[in-house]
Amino acid sequence: MPELPNELDGLSESIEVIDKQIVELLAQRAELTTKVGEYKSKSGSPIYVAEAEASIITSRKSEAKRQGVSPVLIEDLMRRIMRESYHTKSTEFLCTNPDIKKIVVVGGAGALGRIFVDLFKRSGYQVEVLEEGDWAQSESIFEGAGLVLVAVPIKLTEIIISRLTQLPRTCILADVTSTKQKPLTAMMKAHQGPVVGLHPMFGPDVPSLVKQVVVVCHGRETEQYEWLLQQIRNWGGILQQCDAKEHDDAMVFIQVMRHFCSFVFGSHLAGENPDLQQLISLSSPIYRLELGMVGRLFAQAPALYADIIFDNKDSVAMLTEFSVKFNQALALVENSDKEKFIQQFTKVSAWFGDYAKQSLVDSKQFLLKADDDRTLSEER
Amino acid sequence: MPELPNELDGLSESIEVIDKQIVELLAQRAELTTKVGEYKSKSGSPIYVAEAEASIITSRKSEAKRQGVSPVLIEDLMRRIMRESYHTKSTEFLCTNPDIKKIVVVGGAGALGRIFVDLFKRSGYQVEVLEEGDWAQSESIFEGAGLVLVAVPIKLTEIIISRLTQLPRTCILADVTSTKQKPLTAMMKAHQGPVVGLHPMFGPDVPSLVKQVVVVCHGRETEQYEWLLQQIRNWGGILQQCDAKEHDDAMVFIQVMRHFCSFVFGSHLAGENPDLQQLISLSSPIYRLELGMVGRLFAQAPALYADIIFDNKDSVAMLTEFSVKFNQALALVENSDKEKFIQQFTKVSAWFGDYAKQSLVDSKQFLLKADDDRTLSEER
Repeated sequence: MPELPNELDGLSESIEVIDKQIVELLAQRAELTTKVGEYKSKSGSPIYVAEAEASIITSRKSEAKRQGVSPVLIEDLMRRIMRESYHTKSTEFLCTNPDIKKIVVVGGAGALGRIFVDLFKRSGYQVEVLEEGDWAQSESIFEGAGLVLVAVPIKLTEIIISRLTQLPRTCILADVTSTKQKPLTAMMKAHQGPVVGLHPMFGPDVPSLVKQVVVVCHGRETEQYEWLLQQIRNWGGILQQCDAKEHDDAMVFIQVMRHFCSFVFGSHLAGENPDLQQLISLSSPIYRLELGMVGRLFAQAPALYADIIFDNKDSVAMLTEFSVKFNQALALVENSDKEKFIQQFTKVSAWFGDYAKQSLVDSKQFLLKADDDRTLSEER
Repeated sequence: MPELPNELDGLSESIEVIDKQIVELLAQRAELTTKVGEYKSKSGSPIYVAEAEASIITSRKSEAKRQGVSPVLIEDLMRRIMRESYHTKSTEFLCTNPDIKKIVVVGGAGALGRIFVDLFKRSGYQVEVLEEGDWAQSESIFEGAGLVLVAVPIKLTEIIISRLTQLPRTCILADVTSTKQKPLTAMMKAHQGPVVGLHPMFGPDVPSLVKQVVVVCHGRETEQYEWLLQQIRNWGGILQQCDAKEHDDAMVFIQVMRHFCSFVFGSHLAGENPDLQQLISLSSPIYRLELGMVGRLFAQAPALYADIIFDNKDSVAMLTEFSVKFNQALALVENSDKEKFIQQFTKVSAWFGDYAKQSLVDSKQFLLKADDDRTLSEER
């Protein structure tokens, strides 16, 4: 078939022309969404609204169906395109409380603190940062502050909060620590004015607050800091209100257990010393993903994870119980008791209920996305 | 600002017009790639070639840069669009060995077996399926077979293979079990002709073989089944050759450990009975993802996981060692020995080496994709 290569070349060229047009349209689209962003920031509408995104997706999916294009493809593409517009670093936000003269971020030079300093500045607030060496000037730094946000490592949180006894009476005191009971108690004790505990459920590498969860644990004078919550919504954050104890209990499951298990898994691998490259090359997307989840932990600051695991008072009890469950399951394998394993599996499935099935569906979509990036070639 | 809504409406309409044009271009693009697929299948080129994909991505990224559009955005979109063309169910494949008169898939009605039956048929082979009730007719079914593929549950593999002593001498005997030493030994014993062990590293829900790993453990008369390996490459699969023992050793880490830990994690959650909905609503993307990985296990067949965990002879030793590591780490938490925890963390980081940093980078991109789908609204 000697004519094949030419035919293929022709097709490739036509595809390239189409792709260029798509890039052109995306450039035009970005100009328009930048304008939308400007209007939104002027009018104080949140940068991300779940319902608005859903309605755009629905409209584009029906257009796709009409034109014989996969609606799932269009949904994925639209969500990716919209993400791009959310994360534009230059976005300015409406200031929800122009009466606030000054915001002080204690630990504002830290990884998480910097994010809030940047967001407050982009919302038109005057922001000052207080770092370790600045306590001699703290009186002047706190003077006239409408909000003091504590963004320091967990182990320092209570000590630092205990120093904040001289804030202006109407100043809001807030923190962003990943435990909530102790910091909230400490803030209520140190300060007589409005108090609120926040837990941003994301790492310092997020490109924006869009679709990120921030847990809110109310302290005192809720109405005084409503503007702050609204400001976080404007940034695209999703607020979840929660009792401080409930929060800490949940975090044992969400953070402590997972990080601890990843830590042990990594330790185990390092101890057994298998050929890591071979493990990766033999792995399907889901195993590569799970291995990557363990690997990524060890690229981060050990002290942060030590704090998260060691500073939750329920960690020991919970991990001990996990160890008991582990050894019970191990005994089933030792005794070749498949039947009992399957019984227990079925019980746990029932506990998960619909969530298990939903996870399977969701993860399928998700793993397909992981596959998109796969560029590994055959090794022979 | 009363003119705002109208301005916004105008912008939204312009964006919608652009999106319609994008959908139109995608419809045209799909027509062209279908033609490319037809030519490729006629000429027997693999449906997916890593280098070709990489070169298209590079060309589109420079076009994006030229037009002031984010190259990362374009890369993500192009990969997603290309995925769509890979997974077209109607694709026919070039038959790499038209001399093969018949292929028999033992267990071809099972979830994984069906995938291979479908792929062989779409490649122009005559395929017969042998299921439990068909052994009385096995003689006629195997007559003239050029390939017999065993795709039955792990625990039946050896028994079924031991029955395959009457295959034509030149027939290839292959299996797709997730352990490799025992089935390979059994196949070498039962059959005198060409033998090869395969382990497709994916579940029955993959939409195609593109970018999926298939492990190849050579048995006997390699050159006789080269066409089969080439056929898998044509389907888009990525072959990884590996010694059967090395394979099984690696799978203890890749499959046994992860599934067992997820099983224990699920058992632990079900035992402690926290509010699952609350855990989900408080979770950031990474924790939701990790919880989903556990959840998805329990939507699947318990027997499959029981087989994977119980039927690997190294499981008990490996899980026992893991348990030791777990309790050592737990002792650090009990003794509040953060310093030693951090020391060990640093050691494991060193063992992971560059992989840890790479995982952090990769997972960041990956978690952004997870966020795209996030439609959760605030709960108040």
